[in-house]
Amino acid sequence: MAAEIVNPASDGNTGADEGPGTAPDGTFDPAFALHRGGKMAIQATVPVRDRDDLSLAYTPGVAKVCSAIAEQPELVHDYTWKSQVVAVVTDGTAVLGLGDIGPEASLPVMEGKAILFKQFGGVDAVPIALATTDTDEIIETVVRMAPSFGGVNLEDISAPRCFEIERRLQEALDIPVFHDDQHGTAVVTLAALRNAAKLTDRSLGQLRAVISGAGAAGVAIAKILIEAGIGDVAVCDRKGVVSADREDLTDVKRELASFTNKAKLTGSLEQALDGADVFIGVSGGTVPEAAVAKMAKNSLIFAMANPTPEIHPDVAHKYAAVVATGRSDFPNQINNVLAFPGIFAGAMQVRASRITEGMKLAAAEALAAVVADELSADRVIPSPFDERVAPAVTAAVAAAARAEGVARR
Amino acid sequence: MAAEIVNPASDGNTGADEGPGTAPDGTFDPAFALHRGGKMAIQATVPVRDRDDLSLAYTPGVAKVCSAIAEQPELVHDYTWKSQVVAVVTDGTAVLGLGDIGPEASLPVMEGKAILFKQFGGVDAVPIALATTDTDEIIETVVRMAPSFGGVNLEDISAPRCFEIERRLQEALDIPVFHDDQHGTAVVTLAALRNAAKLTDRSLGQLRAVISGAGAAGVAIAKILIEAGIGDVAVCDRKGVVSADREDLTDVKRELASFTNKAKLTGSLEQALDGADVFIGVSGGTVPEAAVAKMAKNSLIFAMANPTPEIHPDVAHKYAAVVATGRSDFPNQINNVLAFPGIFAGAMQVRASRITEGMKLAAAEALAAVVADELSADRVIPSPFDERVAPAVTAAVAAAARAEGVARR
Repeated sequence: MAAEIVNPASDGNTGADEGPGTAPDGTFDPAFALHRGGKMAIQATVPVRDRDDLSLAYTPGVAKVCSAIAEQPELVHDYTWKSQVVAVVTDGTAVLGLGDIGPEASLPVMEGKAILFKQFGGVDAVPIALATTDTDEIIETVVRMAPSFGGVNLEDISAPRCFEIERRLQEALDIPVFHDDQHGTAVVTLAALRNAAKLTDRSLGQLRAVISGAGAAGVAIAKILIEAGIGDVAVCDRKGVVSADREDLTDVKRELASFTNKAKLTGSLEQALDGADVFIGVSGGTVPEAAVAKMAKNSLIFAMANPTPEIHPDVAHKYAAVVATGRSDFPNQINNVLAFPGIFAGAMQVRASRITEGMKLAAAEALAAVVADELSADRVIPSPFDERVAPAVTAAVAAAARAEGVARR
Repeated sequence: MAAEIVNPASDGNTGADEGPGTAPDGTFDPAFALHRGGKMAIQATVPVRDRDDLSLAYTPGVAKVCSAIAEQPELVHDYTWKSQVVAVVTDGTAVLGLGDIGPEASLPVMEGKAILFKQFGGVDAVPIALATTDTDEIIETVVRMAPSFGGVNLEDISAPRCFEIERRLQEALDIPVFHDDQHGTAVVTLAALRNAAKLTDRSLGQLRAVISGAGAAGVAIAKILIEAGIGDVAVCDRKGVVSADREDLTDVKRELASFTNKAKLTGSLEQALDGADVFIGVSGGTVPEAAVAKMAKNSLIFAMANPTPEIHPDVAHKYAAVVATGRSDFPNQINNVLAFPGIFAGAMQVRASRITEGMKLAAAEALAAVVADELSADRVIPSPFDERVAPAVTAAVAAAARAEGVARR
């Protein structure tokens, strides 16, 4: 048998004021209690109990496996954990609603993400919080560590750097690179919107949407809605509609203006909402009830800011046919965990070289379809704990990867 | 309950020629069978079964933990897995006896190392195989990813780069940086040599040693033997004794010549062995029996090359009082797994900022002491599966870290 397991995190001489379950100030707090020692661990999946085990899992047995990979590099996917492990990469600049709190302080979120990957998608994930916020340095660091990973999930990296980092990393690497704050949110939003449209007997093509927020999530949602055939979508930042006539736009917003807002709206968010069918909030802030009242009949309101929705559900329900939020204590929670575990599981199952637009659309389609006959105004999207979700998304993404020619098995 | 677990590594459509248990050529091979899908996985150590769990482990509960770390950075050690997870970093340039096989092909060894860390020390470890062999790039990459880790184990990086990389990384970081090929080997060798000297009623100060091999292991063994008070030690490379009069020496070897070889030996390994008490082989190659025969009485022969010891035990036993090798099928296996799990576990338990020479000496002392009353010529070092080893090394290293002032709790 192996040596006694010593857990360095729990065996130290903790003082009375830092016993298990206490917050830094000494009071009891269940969140701090749960986080003490971290939320994850490594597990050996093969035995190392005796000399024979060791001679297979380590020297000398491991040598022939190494030699085989040196000769045929693609075998690394068969004989290591590479093709089932994702790096969850952040620079700690846009963490939850907390903003730029740095790499160490972001780690609890990255660990949370990692255990969601495991629990919901069966995908292993390792938090990699970087001590740099420089775009070039982030890219080169991830490229250098990429041989160890089968995928890269970018997390909580602030806009606009997140766009360039994702694009250039995906160009450099032959494994999926996916910025979840963009595409995870976009996939789940599209799935919910599909079902909300269906419930109100409309096609996406009949809908005009207004997105509040032109950051990572807003840009990605606008893109996926257009790919899915939305009638029109206008994106608003703090200064109002992102429109081609504005002279204060960043490169990303200028591009956004070029393919959104067919109606050529200008002016404020409130003005854009006049007659709109869909509100999608990914910004914070509050939308006045008067503006909500001017939306079209049977409107669809997705107020996803956390913890305070841009439009409180009580207000939204006065006018809207379907209301969704980012909160778990209201119906229709737009929760990324519905998407990213299955998307990576599906992509990695077929060793996809990237996650294409088609794979994201397939994920949204599959997610929407899980609700099926249970579709109602309070159920346009499944619960995160619906066991059908991850397998459905996984299968759809894997099939789409094959159809799009990016699968390698 | 959570979604069904989907294992992307095992759910793919494997063809008949790549079923579980087969080598790439389709034949059955237990080493390939064991390696299929990799040897490790991530495990959540907190539940994520329902909404309440999610609201503690992820949003919104995680936010207060992040904020606390942002305010008091050292809390990252309490509330994440940082202080129990080691990065096992390689560039794949000096892997086992295989040499420079690149990062992907080195991964099976790094995974093996990671599971040994877990099994023997209770330490989590993550393989990071880098797509660069440039010294500066390796250093900056590891520095950038360091916020996520509580320690760095350098592995299978070729000499002389390994020396500079370790030194500069340790200067840059406040977590332990440890090149196991150097110091792990050195600690176990010293432990075995202590016991071998004791068994033959000599002190280390009475011994003159000759090391064959001036790479990572040879240099580190020379250093620790001197720190431990060896009488004299000469190191030999392919051209013979590393002596100050040679003009072909690298910087590292020139330094080595400055603090070894008090006897001012010159010439070949065979000449240096004449009258020597100790042979330590970490080089490969073969030592002629005639040279072995000229060693001092009661000689101690550690022929650690794998798979072929520099002096076969059958030959060594004709002349030596104690014989050790690197192989598990002979007595007295000099195996790094006796050292690195406990060294990191001890260092991380007290949050040491580095692993000092004193901590390494304490590890060797503790390891040697495990044998105690069982000491015999065939048992100068414990078995890797002796359950007393890791706790003894852990405790000794933690105490030494406190004594040396590098512990932070």
